[in-house]
Amino acid sequence: MIRIAIDAMGGDHAPQAVVAGVNQAIDSFMDIEIQLYGDPSQIKKYLTAQERVEIIATSQVIEGEDEPVKAVRHKKNASMVVAARAVKDGQADALLSAGNTGALLTAGLLVVGRMKGIERPGLMPIIPTINPESPQFILMDAGANAQSKPVYLHQYAILANHYCQTVLQIEKPRIALLNNGTEMSKGDDLRKEAYGLLSQERKIHFIGNIEAKDLLNGQADIVITDGFTGNAVLKTLEGTAKGIFKLLKQTLKAGNFKTKLGALLLKGQLKKMAYNFDDTRQGGAVLLGVNHPVIKAHGSANDQAIYHAIEQARMMVLARTIDRMRHAFQQAD
Amino acid sequence: MIRIAIDAMGGDHAPQAVVAGVNQAIDSFMDIEIQLYGDPSQIKKYLTAQERVEIIATSQVIEGEDEPVKAVRHKKNASMVVAARAVKDGQADALLSAGNTGALLTAGLLVVGRMKGIERPGLMPIIPTINPESPQFILMDAGANAQSKPVYLHQYAILANHYCQTVLQIEKPRIALLNNGTEMSKGDDLRKEAYGLLSQERKIHFIGNIEAKDLLNGQADIVITDGFTGNAVLKTLEGTAKGIFKLLKQTLKAGNFKTKLGALLLKGQLKKMAYNFDDTRQGGAVLLGVNHPVIKAHGSANDQAIYHAIEQARMMVLARTIDRMRHAFQQAD
Repeated sequence: MIRIAIDAMGGDHAPQAVVAGVNQAIDSFMDIEIQLYGDPSQIKKYLTAQERVEIIATSQVIEGEDEPVKAVRHKKNASMVVAARAVKDGQADALLSAGNTGALLTAGLLVVGRMKGIERPGLMPIIPTINPESPQFILMDAGANAQSKPVYLHQYAILANHYCQTVLQIEKPRIALLNNGTEMSKGDDLRKEAYGLLSQERKIHFIGNIEAKDLLNGQADIVITDGFTGNAVLKTLEGTAKGIFKLLKQTLKAGNFKTKLGALLLKGQLKKMAYNFDDTRQGGAVLLGVNHPVIKAHGSANDQAIYHAIEQARMMVLARTIDRMRHAFQQAD
Repeated sequence: MIRIAIDAMGGDHAPQAVVAGVNQAIDSFMDIEIQLYGDPSQIKKYLTAQERVEIIATSQVIEGEDEPVKAVRHKKNASMVVAARAVKDGQADALLSAGNTGALLTAGLLVVGRMKGIERPGLMPIIPTINPESPQFILMDAGANAQSKPVYLHQYAILANHYCQTVLQIEKPRIALLNNGTEMSKGDDLRKEAYGLLSQERKIHFIGNIEAKDLLNGQADIVITDGFTGNAVLKTLEGTAKGIFKLLKQTLKAGNFKTKLGALLLKGQLKKMAYNFDDTRQGGAVLLGVNHPVIKAHGSANDQAIYHAIEQARMMVLARTIDRMRHAFQQAD
């Protein structure tokens, strides 16, 4: 049995969306057991799954506005923290939360624990492209570390490579470095040094620099960057997509009869398009470089997003992704 | 008369689009004189303006693939370089090119010259938002400098503030620092130090940090960042917008009869929406921190984009934007 510890209280639509996702996952995957950490009375309102689900009562919740390190240290009975401890203590195999990102990164680092040989764990979201032949790419680091060194980027590439091979089953992932031009001499000192490390690393298939304008074209399976830039790029991408879809909606709503009729005729196609561009279908963002799978679902995650994040946690455990990473970095020592 | 030196050979659609933009501008603005630098036989094919236009023959062109510094140093008779020299020598008041960005930055720095007191000139594009009440914002630096220091960011804010006041006529521009969170303690060392400098600068209206996800909401008039992040954010924004519009087009084309009819009914509205999101209507990106207005039109600029960039150059000269900047930094010395 694969045991997944879930913070039932984290996220904008918690616990409803979280529990609804769990109900579906229990139906789909016969080999999982779910531990739901949170307020039992609230959880029970939405829980319909009858088997392989356990509720563990916790009395505190980490809020979105909480300062991450302080919250993890002081709210010792928070759903997220208790769930993390269960993973650390071997009572569960993977941790999932849609709550405060900073707090989950902190819980991953301080409670679940940094993997031996890893300088800094990084956050790795999976992002949809507009290329059907290469429908997603991985970005790492998307913001776990604001301040970076070349060696972090080198380690991100090795970690993400293992994820891609084991979970996405891409045998030889194309790894690129996000830079301000494609020539190898481009970028600041961090980029130049990281380029050197990546191009000399034999365990990966490094294809050189990629520019931000080409991210959605599916030219790379893994895009490596520092956490500050990664955060800015991911948030720009999400903000722009959301903004344009909003503008589209307004345009269609505000128009005359002709526009409204056109919008009505297109409804199905536009929905399908928005769905194809939905970044939650591949699961959440994974904190890589810690001792167990730690998955961050989007704060606005709905039941489908939670379902996919559970599926992703299950895959990471089944494929022994973490063992392979540990092995790679023990050898390196 | 306002004299504008234009690199007729720069850009994907040069010289046709450049000359077509000039034809329109000459019609609209009675107070401008245009100097077109390039191949006279090619320019004459498209030139219909009969007055206030001069062609200056040049024998070389800087190509998109040329290494910027080398190209500016060695192609001494390139249209871009000769135009830059005319500005430097006082024969023209402003420089405009849609050619190689790196080369134009180099020509701005080495030929037109860095403004006294400025550490590093920065590139400032104007980006549309989805908020009709605050329809654009300025980003600086969008990639002139890959490696940055806090003082550069401080100077960007003062430069962009003058541009905003004089050209966009926003009396008290809201200036924000792009960061990975809104709290003042966020970011890497560069952000923390820049935050300190900006919050203490009395000449500007600093409103704190802004996250990349909020860029298109019109919360700030000016967003300050380092050139590496700025380049990544700008290119992500352009790439995502382009990608989604492409996806939309494909969706509408590939559908059944119902979809096609809907698309036909919506054509006008969708075009209007794409036009509202067109970043060329506000002109090109300005290299701020050099001795004269230097404007970079998009490589794919069409005649309308060139027209607006000419209008922008004219405004900068009329409003004495550079004089005000020079004054601010002379006082600071």
